[in-house]
Amino acid sequence: MFIELDLQSDTPIYAQLIDQLIGGIASGELKPGDPLPSVRSLAEDLGINLHTVNKSYNLLKQEGYLQVHRKKGVIVQPDGMPGITDDFLEKLRHQMRSLAAAAAIRGMSEEEFAQESRAVYRTAIKNRGGEQQ
Amino acid sequence: MFIELDLQSDTPIYAQLIDQLIGGIASGELKPGDPLPSVRSLAEDLGINLHTVNKSYNLLKQEGYLQVHRKKGVIVQPDGMPGITDDFLEKLRHQMRSLAAAAAIRGMSEEEFAQESRAVYRTAIKNRGGEQQ
Repeated sequence: MFIELDLQSDTPIYAQLIDQLIGGIASGELKPGDPLPSVRSLAEDLGINLHTVNKSYNLLKQEGYLQVHRKKGVIVQPDGMPGITDDFLEKLRHQMRSLAAAAAIRGMSEEEFAQESRAVYRTAIKNRGGEQQ
Repeated sequence: MFIELDLQSDTPIYAQLIDQLIGGIASGELKPGDPLPSVRSLAEDLGINLHTVNKSYNLLKQEGYLQVHRKKGVIVQPDGMPGITDDFLEKLRHQMRSLAAAAAIRGMSEEEFAQESRAVYRTAIKNRGGEQQ
């Protein structure tokens, strides 16, 4: 999987890495049980700090998207992805609120905002094939 | 307007402040031409650094949400809010992509995601009254 980081961005690197990995799982590029590079090798490949990769992996593990095995290393969660928890919904709504507010100020209607969200959803899962809902 | 910052959050303070001010404009709590506190007084009220408030104000000014006058001080853009630019759409889609990916992984359907986006949009503009689209 190709990981692209923007070192000029205001979004911290660990958060960008999380976004890319979640994006890879959603699109089907990363499948349950797939191995991920070790912390050390991913840090070297991306030219970023070990601790940054470690932080991303740990947060993804905490949320249930990854498993970390002593032997197998880091793998994509093979035992079912996390569901729609209250925590997740709260975070989703909070982050979406900022986007909706800016869109509304700029004159985007509720309908257009919903259409954008549908289009983006379809793009996010575009390679998942039969798996998608 | 009441501004609430989460000092424990991973979102930088300047970005939280931007979100809150954009939220206030979207909801109608802040109206075109309304004065905002000076950098110094807002920094003191919130217990944050002058430079942080300055960064938020400058970014909001650059995007066209605020005007900074030598005499009037900082005011909410009175001459029409910025529109839906390509830059804005790109940023919106990029940020929405991460949310959609996580939602899809967790089993939220496209329809549910669109419904969430509509509900959030309505909440964001909920006090705008006749102004809303």
